[in-house]
Amino acid sequence: MTATVPDPAPARSPDAATPAAPLGVAVLGYSFMGKAHSNAWRNVGAFYDTPPVARQVLVGRDQDQLSAAAQRYGWAETATDWREVLTRDDVQIVDICTPGHLHAEQAIAALEAGKHVLVEKPLANSVAEAEKMAAAAREAATRGVIAMTGFTYRRIPALVLARQLIADGKLGQVRQVRVSYLQDWLADEAAPMTWRLRKETAGSGAMGDLASHAVDQVQFLLGERVASVSATINTFVPQRTGPAGLEPVTVDDAAWATLRLPSGAVASVEVSRFATGRRNALEIEVYGSGGHLRFDLENLNELHYYDAGAPAALQGSARILVTDAEHPYLDAWWPPGHILGWDHAFTSQAADFLTAIRTGTPPAASFEDGLAVQRVLDAMERSAAQASTAVVI
Amino acid sequence: MTATVPDPAPARSPDAATPAAPLGVAVLGYSFMGKAHSNAWRNVGAFYDTPPVARQVLVGRDQDQLSAAAQRYGWAETATDWREVLTRDDVQIVDICTPGHLHAEQAIAALEAGKHVLVEKPLANSVAEAEKMAAAAREAATRGVIAMTGFTYRRIPALVLARQLIADGKLGQVRQVRVSYLQDWLADEAAPMTWRLRKETAGSGAMGDLASHAVDQVQFLLGERVASVSATINTFVPQRTGPAGLEPVTVDDAAWATLRLPSGAVASVEVSRFATGRRNALEIEVYGSGGHLRFDLENLNELHYYDAGAPAALQGSARILVTDAEHPYLDAWWPPGHILGWDHAFTSQAADFLTAIRTGTPPAASFEDGLAVQRVLDAMERSAAQASTAVVI
Amino acid sequence: MTATVPDPAPARSPDAATPAAPLGVAVLGYSFMGKAHSNAWRNVGAFYDTPPVARQVLVGRDQDQLSAAAQRYGWAETATDWREVLTRDDVQIVDICTPGHLHAEQAIAALEAGKHVLVEKPLANSVAEAEKMAAAAREAATRGVIAMTGFTYRRIPALVLARQLIADGKLGQVRQVRVSYLQDWLADEAAPMTWRLRKETAGSGAMGDLASHAVDQVQFLLGERVASVSATINTFVPQRTGPAGLEPVTVDDAAWATLRLPSGAVASVEVSRFATGRRNALEIEVYGSGGHLRFDLENLNELHYYDAGAPAALQGSARILVTDAEHPYLDAWWPPGHILGWDHAFTSQAADFLTAIRTGTPPAASFEDGLAVQRVLDAMERSAAQASTAVVI
Amino acid sequence: MTATVPDPAPARSPDAATPAAPLGVAVLGYSFMGKAHSNAWRNVGAFYDTPPVARQVLVGRDQDQLSAAAQRYGWAETATDWREVLTRDDVQIVDICTPGHLHAEQAIAALEAGKHVLVEKPLANSVAEAEKMAAAAREAATRGVIAMTGFTYRRIPALVLARQLIADGKLGQVRQVRVSYLQDWLADEAAPMTWRLRKETAGSGAMGDLASHAVDQVQFLLGERVASVSATINTFVPQRTGPAGLEPVTVDDAAWATLRLPSGAVASVEVSRFATGRRNALEIEVYGSGGHLRFDLENLNELHYYDAGAPAALQGSARILVTDAEHPYLDAWWPPGHILGWDHAFTSQAADFLTAIRTGTPPAASFEDGLAVQRVLDAMERSAAQASTAVVI
Repeated sequence: MTATVPDPAPARSPDAATPAAPLGVAVLGYSFMGKAHSNAWRNVGAFYDTPPVARQVLVGRDQDQLSAAAQRYGWAETATDWREVLTRDDVQIVDICTPGHLHAEQAIAALEAGKHVLVEKPLANSVAEAEKMAAAAREAATRGVIAMTGFTYRRIPALVLARQLIADGKLGQVRQVRVSYLQDWLADEAAPMTWRLRKETAGSGAMGDLASHAVDQVQFLLGERVASVSATINTFVPQRTGPAGLEPVTVDDAAWATLRLPSGAVASVEVSRFATGRRNALEIEVYGSGGHLRFDLENLNELHYYDAGAPAALQGSARILVTDAEHPYLDAWWPPGHILGWDHAFTSQAADFLTAIRTGTPPAASFEDGLAVQRVLDAMERSAAQASTAVVI
Repeated sequence: MTATVPDPAPARSPDAATPAAPLGVAVLGYSFMGKAHSNAWRNVGAFYDTPPVARQVLVGRDQDQLSAAAQRYGWAETATDWREVLTRDDVQIVDICTPGHLHAEQAIAALEAGKHVLVEKPLANSVAEAEKMAAAAREAATRGVIAMTGFTYRRIPALVLARQLIADGKLGQVRQVRVSYLQDWLADEAAPMTWRLRKETAGSGAMGDLASHAVDQVQFLLGERVASVSATINTFVPQRTGPAGLEPVTVDDAAWATLRLPSGAVASVEVSRFATGRRNALEIEVYGSGGHLRFDLENLNELHYYDAGAPAALQGSARILVTDAEHPYLDAWWPPGHILGWDHAFTSQAADFLTAIRTGTPPAASFEDGLAVQRVLDAMERSAAQASTAVVI
Repeated sequence: MTATVPDPAPARSPDAATPAAPLGVAVLGYSFMGKAHSNAWRNVGAFYDTPPVARQVLVGRDQDQLSAAAQRYGWAETATDWREVLTRDDVQIVDICTPGHLHAEQAIAALEAGKHVLVEKPLANSVAEAEKMAAAAREAATRGVIAMTGFTYRRIPALVLARQLIADGKLGQVRQVRVSYLQDWLADEAAPMTWRLRKETAGSGAMGDLASHAVDQVQFLLGERVASVSATINTFVPQRTGPAGLEPVTVDDAAWATLRLPSGAVASVEVSRFATGRRNALEIEVYGSGGHLRFDLENLNELHYYDAGAPAALQGSARILVTDAEHPYLDAWWPPGHILGWDHAFTSQAADFLTAIRTGTPPAASFEDGLAVQRVLDAMERSAAQASTAVVI
Repeated sequence: MTATVPDPAPARSPDAATPAAPLGVAVLGYSFMGKAHSNAWRNVGAFYDTPPVARQVLVGRDQDQLSAAAQRYGWAETATDWREVLTRDDVQIVDICTPGHLHAEQAIAALEAGKHVLVEKPLANSVAEAEKMAAAAREAATRGVIAMTGFTYRRIPALVLARQLIADGKLGQVRQVRVSYLQDWLADEAAPMTWRLRKETAGSGAMGDLASHAVDQVQFLLGERVASVSATINTFVPQRTGPAGLEPVTVDDAAWATLRLPSGAVASVEVSRFATGRRNALEIEVYGSGGHLRFDLENLNELHYYDAGAPAALQGSARILVTDAEHPYLDAWWPPGHILGWDHAFTSQAADFLTAIRTGTPPAASFEDGLAVQRVLDAMERSAAQASTAVVI
């Protein structure tokens, strides 16, 4: 017997008495992050019991490219002016995937318009912007409007498990954290100038792009905020060829920092776009009195856990393949051993954002969390400018 | 400016002069494989330039579960009788994800009805069934109707790269192949009886489920078919508790085989559902006079390549992170180092299937390929029944 | 204050009331194994509390090379006829490192002469020889004379730990064992003919050289003997250039076997000298109902242990760095993390042999153990000659 | 025929016309390092064509322990006053394995007495001491007397290969170096007070012990000296229980540094005795415009090499098993794949020291190299004392 499947899908929440109208989504930006977020909105309902969504509007400036992207990624409409979506009744969610210098204006306007807002990391290009955004989010929260920073790696199951183990005390007192995020797409000095290498558009280089993840993970995993920072930054190739000839690179290529946390823990951070042969190597190590944890983004389904309490002859770092139903997020996906990719974390992030809307619970990473990262990045820049002298935050 | 995105999406093929109507898809089965295939059909158009598809009908027997699945996975309609979809004009593709003993009847009927057919592996539960299916596919091909066996791992970029390297002679003369596929979901002897452990429904145990992949990879990578087989099979836990008490397990828990190929290469195969701690470990090694290759499904973004022609002091097995634009399928996905998961191969498989339809080119794995695997599995069973005496195929 | 250290060193055994005369050692053979055994005798007393030894005689046929080796390795004297050492009063230990076809005659004569005998593996080139040797060892044991087969890998700490864990039940019921020993020194088909490729001198190829280790480890780790065997052997390059032109290779280049054990466990063995890029890769995996173990000779300080009894979310294969004082043999060596090399196992083997002499306890591997391996190798050859039909031992 | 092997062994140097008298060695210290160095002197002649040595005197303060050690390690005599060996004609080499605060006095006196001197790292506990030692070494060099700092890891084949590859330009312009040396023997806060945790005996904590290795490797691999340093140090457990109750820990438990080199390269260093689960993990990564290198002391036979010039689809980090005859030092040891342990580097160091004596060529690491490390450690301390402000060296 053939049957038609009702559309739009009613909310599958067990506590939803009547079908809810889907939440309309608008995504600002259609390139790399726009593609990743579109993928998340297209798939979230297939894996998670979250409120239904309608992929309403994709926003960009180049109509041709925008139309092609919208059709390819499955959006109902397009808009070339992001402000248009703020007044639409069929848009409840604004998902901001534009370059960092646009985040503040767009996010604040959307929150003021009563839209739930998800902003790709880093939250902003400066502490000042981030503070305004955090203030706007606090205000919006009083109206039940949700704001979230898209530190997507907080949705990688292995890292969520890591955080849980630390919070549960499995590592005892955490003392040392090591985070490196190594890429190599600038290692070739003939690589051309891009907006990512200009301070006015990108804000910073490896710092905003990579150290933001590193710092957020330190604060996410330990559940505390950085207290002081000593940092060094470097630009290995100071000029690159742009459309109009040689141009100065005005952002950092690599950065190093030592972070002190209130608990007494010390974290080292190293980020680079010059680490030849390392494509996307975010490596995290956490050492505590009771054990350690190790993670590598290029093998993101694994967490290595050392339990200092194991019998002496059996102590070792266990490679946990974080794909079992007992692991965070995994009951939504595939059977054990069928690994997830990088993009699945975006789908899980969308699910958490939708759950936050449904329950009215402020989601993490909040704008405050995004601001906290920004403060550390800012302190890194100031320390680096003062011969690495430590800066208190 | 807001604009509506045309629906249905026109084909994005560069050679398509006018928009084509989307190809309607029906999937038979909605559990594990139905979920994975639904995911592929939902996403294929967002990543690949393939003919547009309409997710028309999801087919299953339990209407309640079926409806829930259809809504969750985004299907327009459901049907409880698979024969219904054969007469629909809006269904051009029948994708068979049912248990193996149903494949032959369903696939042959669908091909006769002029539908393009994709069948999950293994193609069938017996050589006799597979032969009939291969004959039906040959006949259908004369009508321009496409038939494909869903050996999805042929779409894992690292394995496609491996095949290319072998075909390009980078390994010289291939001599030894080692394939093991180790899982552990039966290692607990208290695990209950299921249809997968009964010969009448499952056909075989680890052999059809796991050795089919292993054998297909041997034939896929080397581009030749197994000539003779010596095999051993074993059932470690001969009885399990079913709904009506203890029941005999009538399939193999693990199997071992040595395969000889016409080129002189020898391949070993070992598969098990009892390899405690190994969730989904398909490991492949290929040794040739010029180098070797190694692969592990749990780290499926990596291929290890040893080049015997490298300078003596620098010879080593290189871990290639198969995520660059130069790698198979990767230009459709994410930037380097942003890894794919297990399910992405299903999306790529759907893309290849759609391309085969558009171009009229018979796709691999063909039903002949599926039959070839079946012949090896059958020979393994016969050899095992004769004290491992080698059987010529 | 300067003091002279007494020489020869008295036994450091805590229960030794009076200094013992050192045990005189003669090693037969001075090439690869002679070098490794010489190293062991030179160092054993520096690390282990064993009876003192005197490196008395090195035996070989070429006086020039022999003299150079003796001086280099620190032997007091040389002899070109191995029978000479049998009549010397200052030789209590005869350590046989000659090619396999000489083992039986030399070992039996030495035992009859009342010398303690250590024989490099494989014990012999045939079951018939090994049976005579085992009989001689039994007879010698009645006279307090010790005989040992040099399966040195039984002294690798990680493998001793593995055996202990299995014996302690940490793996529950062992079901599957996988052993591969892959080398590549013949992968180049231009490599010349050697005595190792002639059946009359070498007995067999990869089988005696590599499968002997593999089979011994199966029996050592599981504590039981193989009951039946199905095997395949292959010679990839059937002719090689010797001093007198092209010569047939009369031994196997690679071998595959499936072994059944009385407990119901099944072991697979694969050995090869053609595995391009694998220098000395003895890999062992043991799967039981309670966990698994994995080992790789090229990283011999590590043992990977999976405990199926760990909490669900924390299950993983732990890399144990087997260098702690709690680990077998390790209190004799260096602090944790200061790894041992391949040759250290020979020193530990010498220590165990000396302890066996001191305590009068028959050492493992015994000649019976060596014979047991020989029976399996013989069954492999017979099975391979009969189209892999399983052979009961 | 039996023959006596001449003793003492004549020099095996091909250019030695007549047998030379062996070089007499005295080792100061008999605990961990004394054991390791004794092992090297006992074995060097068995593997390398170096001048023969006589293990003449082992020096220590506790006669009982000293006598036991001398007998065990194979020394002819003992002495309880290190000055005694300076006047002996049968001692040409003084090998100093005492705690750091004794190095300067002992080394300078020995050099003045005309003895060749090998000093365990770190060279000294302060820059002032190291400067005096370097001056003494310069003066001794004019008399043909050799002085060497025992940075033994310079003899690990993988690290020598790494240095060669960098010197040969295989990495192009080196930009980033990452060195971490992580141990965990203090992670337990109940571990007792030792001399290593008191500034007056140990000089520093993780810095002198571990960072000295890290810094020396940076300078060794890059062939240049550190120009400026920003550092942080930390003592996680400020008090520990000694024989007389709680005592303050007056050295660092962990240290972090960013080093700038004249070439523009930046190196990060992190050392710790609190990295739970890491026994002896010296990890080194070097990133250049042409590739990268990675090394881990716990798998010291491996070097990972990434060649950015490889074909795009084949780029990957190759695990080179540094055990082939083409690799540094390896022709002295075992066949490919038969791995070396930690202690083999001491034997190779002894060989290089003896060769330096024979050829009169000043060996590396020189005392100048040891002083250069000391200057960096000193700068680290000063930087750490000034809120990590960078210090120019």
